[in-house]
Amino acid sequence: MPSPLPYTNALVIGAGSWGTALTAVLADRGLQVQFWGRDHELMDEIQSTRRNSRYLPGLVLPSSIQATASLNDLQPANLVVFVVPSKAVRETASTMASLPALQSARVLISCAKGIEMNTGRRLTQILHESFPTTPLAVLTGPNHAEEVSQRMATAAVVACENDDIARDVQCCFTLPWFRTYTSDDVTGVEWAGAMKNPYAIAAGIALGLKLGDNAIAALVTRALAEMVRMGIAMGGRAESFMGLGGVGDLMATCYSEHSRNHRVGRLLGEGMPLQEIMSSTRMVAEGVPNTASLHEAAKAKGVRTPLLDEIYAMLYQAKPAKEAMRALLSRDPRSETE
Amino acid sequence: MPSPLPYTNALVIGAGSWGTALTAVLADRGLQVQFWGRDHELMDEIQSTRRNSRYLPGLVLPSSIQATASLNDLQPANLVVFVVPSKAVRETASTMASLPALQSARVLISCAKGIEMNTGRRLTQILHESFPTTPLAVLTGPNHAEEVSQRMATAAVVACENDDIARDVQCCFTLPWFRTYTSDDVTGVEWAGAMKNPYAIAAGIALGLKLGDNAIAALVTRALAEMVRMGIAMGGRAESFMGLGGVGDLMATCYSEHSRNHRVGRLLGEGMPLQEIMSSTRMVAEGVPNTASLHEAAKAKGVRTPLLDEIYAMLYQAKPAKEAMRALLSRDPRSETE
Repeated sequence: MPSPLPYTNALVIGAGSWGTALTAVLADRGLQVQFWGRDHELMDEIQSTRRNSRYLPGLVLPSSIQATASLNDLQPANLVVFVVPSKAVRETASTMASLPALQSARVLISCAKGIEMNTGRRLTQILHESFPTTPLAVLTGPNHAEEVSQRMATAAVVACENDDIARDVQCCFTLPWFRTYTSDDVTGVEWAGAMKNPYAIAAGIALGLKLGDNAIAALVTRALAEMVRMGIAMGGRAESFMGLGGVGDLMATCYSEHSRNHRVGRLLGEGMPLQEIMSSTRMVAEGVPNTASLHEAAKAKGVRTPLLDEIYAMLYQAKPAKEAMRALLSRDPRSETE
Repeated sequence: MPSPLPYTNALVIGAGSWGTALTAVLADRGLQVQFWGRDHELMDEIQSTRRNSRYLPGLVLPSSIQATASLNDLQPANLVVFVVPSKAVRETASTMASLPALQSARVLISCAKGIEMNTGRRLTQILHESFPTTPLAVLTGPNHAEEVSQRMATAAVVACENDDIARDVQCCFTLPWFRTYTSDDVTGVEWAGAMKNPYAIAAGIALGLKLGDNAIAALVTRALAEMVRMGIAMGGRAESFMGLGGVGDLMATCYSEHSRNHRVGRLLGEGMPLQEIMSSTRMVAEGVPNTASLHEAAKAKGVRTPLLDEIYAMLYQAKPAKEAMRALLSRDPRSETE
């Protein structure tokens, strides 16, 4: 007999591809799921057709899911998943904080990836400002929404400072094809998740420039070293960068055509201007804003990030991709651990 | 002005694709290079046409290179590169040890990847048995021969217990498109290099079975953890597994169609029997013998290697790939660092 669910009513906030896939996971697990997005037209479509044709067209959601764009429709939920783009977390959290539906939340789970501009804050820190007494967790890992929606084998990490809550959240995100592992290093996995997107843009650029597998492997290896250096400076643990939320997510993003960040990089490498790329897609490539806020955070903390600096120069200072890549791949050789 | 070369006469032993590419690197760097392989027909072709049509057809070697299959032709060399398949290292080293040409060697560089069956020895330990007074180094990293032969940007690691020799070898393997970093953890980088091939077979199997990017990322992340666990048990340092010779080489091999091991895995995943795959290619997929010797070494040392165990069962005990992969991807969830 399956163990009883520690949480029974979920609310998923954010109707992009990942929010849609996670809604299906929680419903498959047996939770009652409400699904909120800000776009009325989209949420009405989901409620009536069980499909999110805009962001995850292949998936048919179970009929038990309640999709809505109206905040007043929301019923009390004890597990709340935040999966809006990182830039929208503060405003969404602040709007949601006063709703009765969220008063009964026993855990808030952050599923976006990013660091806030100007404050350098992690997303759970931002959630904490609006929900100072609610426990917070992070769900992360090498998880392409398209594959999860097709029930393809996937592994993820649930990080929470409280081990019991981590295990309860893990229980709700466990299915035969979806396995979660627990961690107590919230800081480490959030920094890892935020950092991998800019590096995926760099890997995409290298692909677009046809630099080859050797160069991309060298680049991603250096990216991992830079992630660890930054993560430790920010209070995370090195081991978190060696797991699914670190190197796992980094590889999946840097080597997969599914990744929007990787695609943005490839188009940049092929010579398309950033503005044109950004206006040609409806989806958010988190790596672009991530690069600005991480660059700022690294400078503020005095962390050496030569790779991030070149990515920043390419995205925000119009440095030609070829020139930036040459700078990265022809540094003076030294000892590997320096 | 370029700094003077610490070694001027090189001998490359082994005329596969990587030996051929490294011969070109050393010649480009300005060393006098002799190139030895055991196949007279092949070496005669290389000497007369400057091409190795069998293993690296795209490359034209510089005219200064002396290619031969005759041991008596060999002239004294001060830098000797061993790049024969791992299984041939012991016999080749023992044959070469008595040659006058190798008496003047000031460093032997091991470029193959593997652990010896029955003895569990690393390749530099095997070389040491035949050359007890000659310093030993290892050259490793995410280095596809085809790309190196096209002068595409590549980074590698030179490991040697003696820092001065590491730097001298580094100097000989440094070109604008070929960068080397130094390490003193010979044990760590050799274990890392030997272990990545079986995991590349597993990644190929997952691709052949169309398990998806999420599953492959989860698999490779676990592979890295297993490599670190084994490497530390064998006396290596964890940090070596985070560098080019560890995660870098692992990613390049697990995510590249260039890799023979990856290709063997993919064909296995698609349902082709191992014998048929092995007989259809002239090239050596090191991962197949590596799996047997690593499996044996792990058992002897009592290291827990669930991934390697499943790969061994697939390759040597006819376990169906689908079943082995299911076992790997549906383990009981637990804390990520357990």
